[in-house]
Amino acid sequence: MKQPILIKFGQRIRELRKERNLSQEQLAELTGFHRNYIGMIERGERNPALVNIEVFANVFEMSLSELLKL
Amino acid sequence: MKQPILIKFGQRIRELRKERNLSQEQLAELTGFHRNYIGMIERGERNPALVNIEVFANVFEMSLSELLKL
Repeated sequence: MKQPILIKFGQRIRELRKERNLSQEQLAELTGFHRNYIGMIERGERNPALVNIEVFANVFEMSLSELLKL
Repeated sequence: MKQPILIKFGQRIRELRKERNLSQEQLAELTGFHRNYIGMIERGERNPALVNIEVFANVFEMSLSELLKL
């Protein structure tokens, strides 16, 4: 995988998580995703589907459009 | 499937396709996706992954963020 768009999305998730002083485990709890999935997302190793992207947007309390300003 | 976010995304794709006077078949050719996949997306029956969402953004010549103003 590791496509540029996935790398950028992962960086965005990591940046938002750190801004909120959350650990990967805490973000895993908030999203309901597995901690390993969060790690893979942040490294650009997963290609998340729209429904999962929306879960991140909800947890970060922003619109999809805002979340995807990559 | 048929979640609200997928319905909204499908409507957005259909609206952009029609604005450009494209048939589903033409959009299929431009994106490289199967015509049936386009139809399912427009009806909210598929949960597209980020890499595929980017393909739609590229074909419609807009940013991901702009495409996802749902």
